[in-house]
Amino acid sequence: MKLLQVDTIEEARAKLLSCLGASGGAAEQAPLSQALGRIAAADVPAPGDLPAFRRSTVDGYAVVAADTSGAGETLPVFLRLAGSVAMGEGASLRVHRGECAYVPTGAMIPPGADAVVMVEYCENTGTGTIGVCESLAPGSGLVEPGEDCRAGQGLLSRGCLIRPQEAGALAAAGLTKVPVYPPRTLSLLSTGDELIPPEGEPGPGQIRDINSTALAALAEKNGYRVVLRRIIPDEEALLMEAVRGAVKVSDVVVLSGGSSQGDRDWTGAVFSRLARPGILCHGLALKPGKPTLIAWDEATQTLLMGLPGHPVSAMMVFTLLLSWLSRTLAQAPEPFPIPARISSNLPGSPGKTLCQPVHLRREAGGYLADPVFGKSGMITTLIRADGFILIDKNREGLKKEEEVWVHLF
Amino acid sequence: MKLLQVDTIEEARAKLLSCLGASGGAAEQAPLSQALGRIAAADVPAPGDLPAFRRSTVDGYAVVAADTSGAGETLPVFLRLAGSVAMGEGASLRVHRGECAYVPTGAMIPPGADAVVMVEYCENTGTGTIGVCESLAPGSGLVEPGEDCRAGQGLLSRGCLIRPQEAGALAAAGLTKVPVYPPRTLSLLSTGDELIPPEGEPGPGQIRDINSTALAALAEKNGYRVVLRRIIPDEEALLMEAVRGAVKVSDVVVLSGGSSQGDRDWTGAVFSRLARPGILCHGLALKPGKPTLIAWDEATQTLLMGLPGHPVSAMMVFTLLLSWLSRTLAQAPEPFPIPARISSNLPGSPGKTLCQPVHLRREAGGYLADPVFGKSGMITTLIRADGFILIDKNREGLKKEEEVWVHLF
Repeated sequence: MKLLQVDTIEEARAKLLSCLGASGGAAEQAPLSQALGRIAAADVPAPGDLPAFRRSTVDGYAVVAADTSGAGETLPVFLRLAGSVAMGEGASLRVHRGECAYVPTGAMIPPGADAVVMVEYCENTGTGTIGVCESLAPGSGLVEPGEDCRAGQGLLSRGCLIRPQEAGALAAAGLTKVPVYPPRTLSLLSTGDELIPPEGEPGPGQIRDINSTALAALAEKNGYRVVLRRIIPDEEALLMEAVRGAVKVSDVVVLSGGSSQGDRDWTGAVFSRLARPGILCHGLALKPGKPTLIAWDEATQTLLMGLPGHPVSAMMVFTLLLSWLSRTLAQAPEPFPIPARISSNLPGSPGKTLCQPVHLRREAGGYLADPVFGKSGMITTLIRADGFILIDKNREGLKKEEEVWVHLF
Repeated sequence: MKLLQVDTIEEARAKLLSCLGASGGAAEQAPLSQALGRIAAADVPAPGDLPAFRRSTVDGYAVVAADTSGAGETLPVFLRLAGSVAMGEGASLRVHRGECAYVPTGAMIPPGADAVVMVEYCENTGTGTIGVCESLAPGSGLVEPGEDCRAGQGLLSRGCLIRPQEAGALAAAGLTKVPVYPPRTLSLLSTGDELIPPEGEPGPGQIRDINSTALAALAEKNGYRVVLRRIIPDEEALLMEAVRGAVKVSDVVVLSGGSSQGDRDWTGAVFSRLARPGILCHGLALKPGKPTLIAWDEATQTLLMGLPGHPVSAMMVFTLLLSWLSRTLAQAPEPFPIPARISSNLPGSPGKTLCQPVHLRREAGGYLADPVFGKSGMITTLIRADGFILIDKNREGLKKEEEVWVHLF
């Protein structure tokens, strides 16, 4: 039995970063509608003050706050109605002491006024004066120029996820494009003599390939663009030719299957022959996911990954390494893991990090995490699971009720 | 001051369901690559057993388990090597008592064998016999036909989110299409004399429209297809014409702004004139989000919504009502909210449900939720926030350290 030097997840991650550097690559400018769900590739300062002028936040009367001192429900202060400001227009009048002007929500505050009293706290006497029944502090009922975001200040930070509100803020600032990282190109080669495409009808001993569908979906969800998906028989020459072709069109080439030590596992041999410096990681101290290979080809700047053939293992390794890599290079935070308590004792896998799928059950005060078990090679395990927990390689296991962090799929 | 009958969120939601019925509508068959992130519109049974044949889960030797009884590291049992099974082929040999056959991971188990011992626990003597150093129970090292999913059993359930693993399972079953709901069509009309498009240069008193960008993104993220985006001045005739046009092409027409009781707020008047039975909800017991109108037009089966003009309020009401509606009609679960403790005392808004944006801070045992404050009309409040909490209308507020559920944006 051949003994392998296996890496921890942390060691494997460090090797990935050493290949690809700490940068997300060159940024491109994407229109807002195509930037949703992507990561800002640079800090984006506001080109001007937001808002650009002093705006009312209520329907009401712009006043000099000092004039309302002492006013109350039973003791209104009467102010001369000097006019009104229309929406979307500059304020052409000025409010002097003893005066007020009608301003709808969002309208410009006329010069001289420093507060807005809501119409609900006013009485229009109908004789050109307004009774104000509230005492106001300067600044109430309005928002100052730059109060939302000052010119030159960071509207978005590098690494932030572009959600609907980020798109809205960019629109407010007149920025219709945003710097994002172009997705890295990725090729998927499923290896195995037993594999046929999903649309085929399997003969004896054959199965439909899961990985090229599942890993492609996972890749696209995590910032990669899948440029090639192929099924390759377990023959060294064919695999060599396929990898050679994939390297030309991809930043990352992912093979699933063939990364073990069996007679027909050619991935290691192919990586060693095609890539320089070649294989950097010969296996992971991870269960499931041990038969994982990482190689780097300096000349073409291509990352080569050999993942286990079992779909569950392949998806876990992809998630822990390639999804992590994409996020880390873009300086994006990990999606919030969910705190839960484990609902039963759970043995670990000493010497290996155990990746355990769990189902989440909501209770009054939090979540219970139920372990979801399934033999290797079963895909429905992951359908029944909401996420996974990691049990440290130095832990013998978890005790029922112990606190865990659940990483959602 | 005009007094309004306002609805609670629950009352407004019941009204929405009473209009649109409890169904997600007619399903369409989407190719797997386009189904990711969407909701299964029907239960999907497995058309055949998964796996379809008895498969090995390890590289090893298929044996009759009873033959290995008592075998151990120091006391191997020797079995005659009857042959091997190739990947992707039917097993042409039969394993009799006293025999074994080599099977790689994923290969078909030959008839007669009922367990597989890993190569790591075997010694190949090179003389046509294999020494087995492990005692096996029947069924170990293999997966039975239908053990992953039995023919006719539910592979996916209606309402389940289609993630990479669901796509993989469908591929495994030879299902290259999946029933999903076609997105409902939605029109967005931003009303206001002050609004210009994001690419424009604002004059005095003008601002760039945020809502048509932010709400469009929110709509697309939540199962709607935005078919129309327009900015409409505050003029009744123009608004009437725009809504009349939008009704023809949309299932849902969303207006933002103009739903208050001001002189220039025409949304209510337009809804009353164009829709029968017309307005069903005149306002929400929600802060922010009170000036919200819901109307229904029976003849065209169109839902009409008037949202507040403030982007934060408009996005909150959209999230609480229209995102909820889309999910509920599809029987999809709410994304997991995150349990946290509030980091400071927080006053509520008695009589109204208070929707409070929060920032999440991870600690050893869980999360702290920091309230994010901002004047109405500010969009950066939502950029600084990870999600929101709801404070019940009957609560005066929350005490520091109190447990809350954070709904992520």
